[in-house]
Parts: sequence; C-alpha cells; structure tokens
Amino acid sequence: MNIDDEHGTTVLRRVADEPPRRRFLDVLIGKPLATADAPRETIGKIIGLAVFASDALSSTAYATQEMMVILAVAGTMAFGYVFPLSIAVVILLAIVTFSYEQTIHAYPNGGGAYIVSRDNLGEFAAKIAAAALLSDYVLTVAVSISSGVAQIVSAYPSLYQYRVWLAVAMVGFIMLINLRGVRESGIIFAIPTYFFVFTMYATVLIGLVRYFTGSLGMVVDPPELELLHASQPITLFLILRAFSNGTAALTGVEAISNGIPAFKEPRSKNAGITLIWMSLILGSLLLGISFLSAQIHAIPSEYETVISQMARTVYGSRELMYILTISATTVILIMAANTAFADFPRLGALAAIDGLLPRQLAQRGSRLVFSRGIIVLALLASSLIFVFQASVTRLIPLYAIGVFMSFTLSQFGMAHRWYKIGKLQPGQEVKERGSVLRYDPQWKFKMIVNGFGAAATFVVMLIFAVTKFTDGAYLVIFIIPILVAIFSVIHHHYLSVAKKLSLDRYGTTPPRIVRNRVILPIGGVHRGTLAALRYARALSDDITAVHIAIEPEEAEKVRRKWEMYGDGVRLVIIESSYRVFMKPLLDYIEDIYSSRQPNEVITIVVPQFISSNRWANVLHMNTADALREELLTYKGIVITNVPYLID
Amino acid sequence: MNIDDEHGTTVLRRVADEPPRRRFLDVLIGKPLATADAPRETIGKIIGLAVFASDALSSTAYATQEMMVILAVAGTMAFGYVFPLSIAVVILLAIVTFSYEQTIHAYPNGGGAYIVSRDNLGEFAAKIAAAALLSDYVLTVAVSISSGVAQIVSAYPSLYQYRVWLAVAMVGFIMLINLRGVRESGIIFAIPTYFFVFTMYATVLIGLVRYFTGSLGMVVDPPELELLHASQPITLFLILRAFSNGTAALTGVEAISNGIPAFKEPRSKNAGITLIWMSLILGSLLLGISFLSAQIHAIPSEYETVISQMARTVYGSRELMYILTISATTVILIMAANTAFADFPRLGALAAIDGLLPRQLAQRGSRLVFSRGIIVLALLASSLIFVFQASVTRLIPLYAIGVFMSFTLSQFGMAHRWYKIGKLQPGQEVKERGSVLRYDPQWKFKMIVNGFGAAATFVVMLIFAVTKFTDGAYLVIFIIPILVAIFSVIHHHYLSVAKKLSLDRYGTTPPRIVRNRVILPIGGVHRGTLAALRYARALSDDITAVHIAIEPEEAEKVRRKWEMYGDGVRLVIIESSYRVFMKPLLDYIEDIYSSRQPNEVITIVVPQFISSNRWANVLHMNTADALREELLTYKGIVITNVPYLID
Repeated sequence: MNIDDEHGTTVLRRVADEPPRRRFLDVLIGKPLATADAPRETIGKIIGLAVFASDALSSTAYATQEMMVILAVAGTMAFGYVFPLSIAVVILLAIVTFSYEQTIHAYPNGGGAYIVSRDNLGEFAAKIAAAALLSDYVLTVAVSISSGVAQIVSAYPSLYQYRVWLAVAMVGFIMLINLRGVRESGIIFAIPTYFFVFTMYATVLIGLVRYFTGSLGMVVDPPELELLHASQPITLFLILRAFSNGTAALTGVEAISNGIPAFKEPRSKNAGITLIWMSLILGSLLLGISFLSAQIHAIPSEYETVISQMARTVYGSRELMYILTISATTVILIMAANTAFADFPRLGALAAIDGLLPRQLAQRGSRLVFSRGIIVLALLASSLIFVFQASVTRLIPLYAIGVFMSFTLSQFGMAHRWYKIGKLQPGQEVKERGSVLRYDPQWKFKMIVNGFGAAATFVVMLIFAVTKFTDGAYLVIFIIPILVAIFSVIHHHYLSVAKKLSLDRYGTTPPRIVRNRVILPIGGVHRGTLAALRYARALSDDITAVHIAIEPEEAEKVRRKWEMYGDGVRLVIIESSYRVFMKPLLDYIEDIYSSRQPNEVITIVVPQFISSNRWANVLHMNTADALREELLTYKGIVITNVPYLID
Repeated sequence: MNIDDEHGTTVLRRVADEPPRRRFLDVLIGKPLATADAPRETIGKIIGLAVFASDALSSTAYATQEMMVILAVAGTMAFGYVFPLSIAVVILLAIVTFSYEQTIHAYPNGGGAYIVSRDNLGEFAAKIAAAALLSDYVLTVAVSISSGVAQIVSAYPSLYQYRVWLAVAMVGFIMLINLRGVRESGIIFAIPTYFFVFTMYATVLIGLVRYFTGSLGMVVDPPELELLHASQPITLFLILRAFSNGTAALTGVEAISNGIPAFKEPRSKNAGITLIWMSLILGSLLLGISFLSAQIHAIPSEYETVISQMARTVYGSRELMYILTISATTVILIMAANTAFADFPRLGALAAIDGLLPRQLAQRGSRLVFSRGIIVLALLASSLIFVFQASVTRLIPLYAIGVFMSFTLSQFGMAHRWYKIGKLQPGQEVKERGSVLRYDPQWKFKMIVNGFGAAATFVVMLIFAVTKFTDGAYLVIFIIPILVAIFSVIHHHYLSVAKKLSLDRYGTTPPRIVRNRVILPIGGVHRGTLAALRYARALSDDITAVHIAIEPEEAEKVRRKWEMYGDGVRLVIIESSYRVFMKPLLDYIEDIYSSRQPNEVITIVVPQFISSNRWANVLHMNTADALREELLTYKGIVITNVPYLID
C-alpha cells in the first residue's frame, strides 16, 4: 500500500489479487481467472476457425436443399439451376468476404456491423445494427439447436416428445462451456468442427472422383417430390427467391469481424486469414454439394435431407462413412450455436459501454467472460425454443433478415468510410472511436465494391422480407424497431443521468448538515430495539422512537418498558384506528419531513432481526425495505437498518 | 397529541384515523374499514347460517350417492341399507352436534378443534389439529369448486377443456368477495344458500307427499349400474365402508365453532342456535334424500347424480323445478368453498399468534379481514386444482380424514375438559387460555358422551384411512406430520428469538458508541457521490472513500476529481486484478472490521441513484443491497444508502 499525499488529500493504493472466493458454480464453470491471464485467453487461427466458423459452415447442411425447395415448384428440370445459383451465392460470398476483410484490417479492435455503422453512419444506424445482430444471435442459437435436435429426433423418433427439453438442455450445456471461458471452449469446439470439415470434404471429393470416373449413379429410392401447386414456369422472381434462400449459406460470415480481439497478435492478420479460410471452405463445399446433388437427382424432402441422399449415393450404402457424415452434420448444427455464444455477449458489452444496454452487461465475470450476456442469450434462446416448440420450420423465416440487415449497414458504412478517406490528404490521419482513417489511393474502387455489396445484400434482405413476411418475418420487422426504441430510451436515460450527475456546473457546495433527526420505529422494547437505539445515539442527539399501536395493551407495555430502558429518548405512540402499521408511520415521517430545514437530514433507523438461517428471515417483517420502497423519492430521508443477530 | 412526562421520558400520543390511501385494489375489495367499525362487521343467525352452513349442507348433494356406490358391489338389493345407514349417520351427527354445542358455550371466543386441543391436550395435539384443519380447508375449497365446476361441465360439455381455468377463476372470485370483508360476503352468500335449502326441501316434501299418496313412481330410464366386480356378499366391513362414506355428510359441521367471534352478541347463544338449525336441516335432508332414493330405485352413476334422478322423478319432468334444483345444488357446492374462506384465515391468525405460523398471517388488512390468509388459501387451493386437474374423483379420497382427525381431537379434548371440571369444587373457577372452567354436576354424563363421540369419529377416521389409503389418503397422512414439523420449527424459532431478545437478564448496558468509522464506496466522483459524502460528514469525522479500480485510466480520473471535490477525505484505490468489484471491497471492509473496538461501529454509506421511474432503477447497480446481502451476519456493520434523486 503506497500513500500519495501531494494535493492535501490522502490517497492510498492497494492491489486486490486474491482470487474471488470459490463457489459451487466454480465446479461447473472453472477456476476464476485474473485480468493478467487475459492475453493468454486469446486464440490462434486453427482454434479461431473452429470457434467462429461453425455457424457459417453449418449452413452448407441446408442451403442447397433450401434452393431446391423453391425450384421444385417449376418441376425437377429446374434443379439444373442449383449449380449456377450456387455460383452466384459464392460470388456474393466473395464480395461479403472482401468487404469484411477490409473491415478486419480497418478495425483491429473488433469491427462488426455495430462499430462500422456507429463510426460511419451514426448512432441511429448503429442501434439498428445492434438490434439486428442481437436478435439474429438469439435466432442462430434457437435455429441451430432446434435443427440439430431435429436430426437426432429423426434418428430416434421416440425422443420426439422430449425435443423441447433436449434443445433447452443443449442450450444450457453450451452456456456452461462458454461460462468456462473462451480458450477451453475453443478446444471443445475444434474437434467437431474439423470432424465436419473432414467428412464433408471426403464425401464431396469421393463423389467427384466417382462422377468423373463414371461410377456415380443416381439416388436409389429417392423420397417423393411433394408439390403443393401445379408446375409453374421458371420466372426471374422464382430464381431470385431460390437465390435468396441459398444466401442463407452466408449467415455467420460476419462472426469473425466481431471477434477479432479474441485472436492472438497480430490479430487483424490472423482474423483476416481465418476469414478467407472459412469462406474458401464454405464456398467450395457449397459448390460441391450443389453440383453433386443435381447430378445424382436428389429430391428436397422433409423426410430425408439432400445431404443424406448425397452421402448414401456417394458411399453406396448406409454404413460407417454415411453415419459419420450425418453425425458430423448433426454436431456442427448444434455447435453453430456456439458462434452466437462467442459474439452476443461481446456485442452486448460494446452496446452497454455505449449506454444502449444496462451497464451490468459490460461487467466481466470471474472467468473473464461477460457472464451476464451469456446467460441472457441462453435464456432468450430457450424461451424462443419453448414458444416455437423447437420447430425449425417455424423459426427459419425469422432467421436471415437480421444478418442481411447488418451486412447492408456494415458495407454501406464501409463505403462511406472510403468516401471519407478519399477526402483526406495522403499521410493525413483521422482518429475515430473504433479505428484510424488513413488515405488510400484505391479508395474509389473499394468504395464501389462495398457499395455494390451493400446494394446486393440490401436487395437480398428485401426479397427475404417480402417472400417470407407472412411466414414469420413480420415478427423480426416488429422486434427490431422495438429494440431500437429500447436502446434509445436506455441511452437517453444514461445521458441524462450523466448530465445531472456532472460536476461541471456544480456551483456552491450545499451547506453542511447540522442536524440529523433520527426516527426509530419500534414494535416492542427488546435487545434488538436497544441495539438500534445505541446506534441512533451515535448518529444524533435528536431521536424520536415511534410505536404504532394496533392493540392498546401492547402500547401500554411498550410505554412502561421504554420508560425503563429508553435512555430518556422521546417516544411517540400512534394509535392506528385501522389496525394498519405502515400508513400512520409514513404520515408521521411526512409530518417531520415537511418541516425540515435545508441543512437538516432525516435518518430512519430500523431495527432488523437477522438470523444466519436465511429462511428464518422470512418469519420477520422487513420494515426497512417496506419503508425504503415507500420513501424512495423523498430527498433528504435516509433509511438505515441496524441488524441484530439473533443467533 | 397529549404529552405524558411523568417518568422523565417524554411520551406523546397521537391517533391516526385517516383511512389508508386508496389504491386500485380498493375498487375490487371495497373501502378500508376502521377498527371502530369492527363490531358492526358481525353477523346474525340468518346470515351466520348462510356463511357457515354451506359446506355442511352441500354434502347432502353427494353423501347418499357415496353410500350407494359402496353398497352397489353387493347388488341393487343392498340399497335397502341406505336409509338405515343414514339414520346411523344422523345419530353420529347428533353426537357431534351435541359435543360442539357444549364447545361453543365453553369457548365463546371461538373453540375449534385447535383451541380445544391446545387447552386440554397440549401443544402437540394442537399442532396436529391445526395441520388437519388447515389442510382440510384447502381441500374443501378444491373439492367443492371442482365438484361445482363438474356440474357445470356436465351441462355444457364444451367447457370441459377450460375446467381448470374455470375452477381457478371461481377460487379467485370467492377470494375477492372475502377480501371485501365478512358482512358483505354474508349477504352475497345468503341468497344461494337459502335458495338451495328451499328447493331441496321442496323436492323432498313433494316427493314424500307423492310417495304417501302413491303417485311417486320409479326412475324412468335410470343409468346403467356399473359393477367392477362380481356381486359380493353383504359383510359388516362393507356396511362400515358405506357408513364411513356417508359420514362425508359431516364435513363442515365444525365450521361454526371456529367462527363464533363473527356472530352478534350474545355470540355463544346465537352460534349455538345456528349450529342446531344447521344440523336439523342437514339431518332431515339426508334422511329424506336417502329414503326417496331407495324408494325410486335410483342408481349411483358417474353419468347422472342421484339428486338429479330424484328430482326428475319427483317433478316428473326435466323442466323448471328440476332445473332450479340442479342449479341450486351446483351453486351450493361452489359456495361451500366460502366456509373455508371464512375459517382458514381465522385459524391461520390464531396459529400465527401462538407462533406456529409466520406472524404476518395475524395482521389484518385494510378491510379488517386477514387478507394474507385469504390469499394463501386461494393460492394453495388453486395449486391443488392445477395438480389434480380439477378432478373430484382424485381429490375426494384426500378429503375427510382431516375433518375426522379434528373431530376426534376436539371431542377427546372436551372429554378431558369434563374430567378436569369433575375435579373442581362447586363454585370454583379456573381460567385457561381459551375459556373458564366451572364445576358442572353433569360432568360424568357429558364426559361419556364426548368420549363416545371421540371413539366413534376415531373409528370412522381409521376406516377412511384404511379403505382409501391407496386412492390418495396416504398424501394427507404424509402432509399432516410435515405440517406439524413445520409448525414446531417455526414455534421453536419464535420462542428462541423471544428468549434472545428478552431484556430479563439484560445486565449492564453496552458501552456507548464513541467512534463511527464510515466507509464510502465510490464508482466515480459526481453529484451522487458528493451527496453521500455530505451525509457521511454528518455521521462521523472518520471517513474513508474506497474506489475499486477495474480500469487504470478510470482510477486516475477518480483520484484527480476526488482531490478537487473530496473535501480532504481519505481515498483508498484498490486495483482489482480479477476485474471484479465486490470481492476486493468486501476484503477491505473485513480488514477494517477485524480491527474494530467494542465501542466502535462501522457504517458503510453507499450512494444510490433513484429515479421516480421505477424501471429506470434497474439500469443502475444496487451496490447497497448486494453489500447488505453479503454482510448480513456481521455484528456492528450498518449499511446505509443515501438516495440521490436523478429526476
């Protein structure tokens, strides 16, 4: 402890480096970590890919099928469009990847859509981005877990009735892993992610080899094609709908840009390389799956997934390799939720620091993760799973709008950033909140690329919203403005509090308190009362004990005892005609309150019995809390409870 | 306000006769009533019968049928035993009535099984009686309401799926009526009770007239007799089972003896006369219904009640009089729950005053009723209705054991009371807690009657418990000991608290507090902090401000500002290596705590932002409450929050 006394005020410093006390929870979530451990809690590219890519990669499990579902209304011949459409999706993926690559280098401290919007498009756009992303993370968890459970349930139909509980239990499991901290969860998630990547590449490559050697046949016993309507012509609108469904493959691509601070130094470079790896894997798998699916004449169906049809056709049986592929797909879907668990709390903390969400979300827990955000996400996702009964079909239409809204904002923000950079002189630097602007001779080209990306993702978002509006997308279109409104109200509150608390125009110091009037409500005269009286004596010489008389005999007993033990302190007995306790006491306090001077304060000292047995405290009335609740908004009344330990 | 200063201590008295402030709830539960209004809140014999008899009278709706259900296993010829068994039940009723008549006169302040057991058999028996009665009141509400709803649902089968909600809504409705206070609820309940008595007498009398004039036929199209087993012989055990089922008619007879204080003066006489009226009505209706049911060859059935078969046979049609009779039966079943709402809170308050239940149950609400007890009863009964899905069949086996347990205890207690009276000299008086003992020359005869009653009801209780054990009676046999254990734990707690708080061996007064060490935890330096500092100044000159540093820059800012505004007060900055806030603060407080002297006290002054907008308070961390929770059991630490109004 060092002492620093230069300005007439003693300032002492100490370091608290004892770890927080161990609780039962520690068994579940691991030992507390000190801040000094934080740098070691970052991750490399290998683990980073596993942690942040599972969401994006898992979408290859359904993107092809979702395109085929739309094309099916035009008959099986339309399935020929799947591969060209996949190429279009991969081009869009390349545009988005390029844009985010620029973002990652521009924002080494994390540059998700929220920060890019905030710095380049203003607070309102930032609030929209935060609302879109946060609701999308919740949906990612709900959809991925429900989809994973649906795979398990398809294999074991008897589990169907427990699907909601199964899904909620899985959310709880992933929550616990994340509460343990990021490094351990990275290792836990690396194995299944790489297992998925390996089995899926194996399936696609073996399939391509068999195709080019001519030994790949058609799907044996494909599921029946269910057509709700008579065959329709292939229109541009239909193609666009199929394309927008295919872009579901892009959900999760933004994850890395939010998570840059979790990477080892040089973090921008590591994160950028990881993003490119991820996009290459995602794009190649999507192309391979779409190509093979069309060749083997797979049929989109509720009864058997396209992945399953492809795997059993490639391996020619439903044996080991088939089972590994399907298991890996199931696991990656469940693990995809982890991406949201890595990002939701970070974004929540960012928004909390900016005053859009309650400050408590910015506090790190003992494992250096934002525990509250992790728990909030688990609770929200579980509620969603309950409400939608773990049905992927009902959740899916809510899913992608938020992602494309954030893509649009992020890329539009980046375009605006290039425009600002174009106005700079070479060598000039402008520091913004999240990054530094430096002149770049290629600003025009980059602005056009980002602008094109923004326009493309905006169109996709509109198509999503229009074609899926009645399926549930309307919910998201309602929820995002509501969230924005909540952010604005909270933000306004924090700003106005900060202004009111500010010492900028503090002016003259208010007069010193010269009189502390103490009111001591007593229910009886006993050791607890006398302990409170003893404390009151230390506060002031102006003490009034008050007894609310419900029964006259009781009042008489109190009077007699007080004369013996009350140390000469004034006693007021109030007869309560209505046998109520609180109201006459409040009236009395208000009487005193209305006659107080500016240099006076009123302290209400309430005796409180405390038992070390927590439940026993239920058996005693907590007068202090009730008074505090009632007198919350009175200026200059302080309520103190003097605990009296009864065991 | 008068001042009374005789013993050197000023004692002031005031009367608080302003009614409690009006709240939204008042619209539902009526204006608050002053204590002075209490005497007017008592009831006469006419209303008293309606309030306390509905439970007992409603049992005539099923007692006959329940006897027939048992006899049915021996074939329809066995139904000839119904009338003789009813006579036996009426004799038991007469014995119980006689016993309670004596109780009412002996205990003018209310002499339910609880008080009689407490005064004559000791605390343990009293606890058993309280447990039996309280659980039975809850069951009365659940059974009566479920049975009433079952009648409605029989008439309108489409309501079947809403039966649980319907039942809970009715519990809520009766709760509101009772929260309004006893007089108004008496009037509300008088009409249906007398409506039932009138229609049932009309049915029985017209039936008897038609029987004796020879115009009463048989039931047209009776429901089929369902026999689960082959016809069994008539055994004594079978007869006893049928008898014990018939004694279900006695449930509710004890209600008046608990409710004596609700009657107008002379209350013992009024209550006693009401009890005799009630038993006469109950007995005569039971005999009439049983006699007619046997004559018309009614068949006990789940599809049509015996009452319904009797009514349509007597009136020869399903028209007006039939419908009135069935409606009245339905309504009385629902209203029967009101009896429990009148008695449960009173018994709860009695037990609370004796320290068996939390004291809060003895507090009267603004309408002079024990609001908390009423609400607790409604919640428990609603839970039971939820758990048993409003099924009377599943609730009924739990129902009568508690009643007969309390009958047994009450009558055995009365027998012991006569024994004690027999030991007195003529003219001698002994005051007990609930009554006064006076010599009575007839004590032997009365003791034998009560003893016989106790034995009879004890046997009935055993038969109930044995024959219905597996149907659910075992639940009650578990719950009652658990309740007794809870009462004992609570009682022990209150006794030990009273002993620890007692001033009997207070000895020397502890030394005056000479030093109040104030700790002022601050998160930043602003108007809120300075308000807390100003208050701390009024408490003591020994103040230490403590800042827990999560971010080093923030700590530096706090130090600079404190040097300007901190009024020279010492500041301790604690660097938290684990980025946690609470633990280092607690450690610091414990350091100070461990070095304190006996005449020192530690006050922790916590600045707290208060917004008049209640939800806004969620956005600020409530450090004071968290500290209070942690430091609950430290002697000599007082936590004070200084509210700072931010709007």
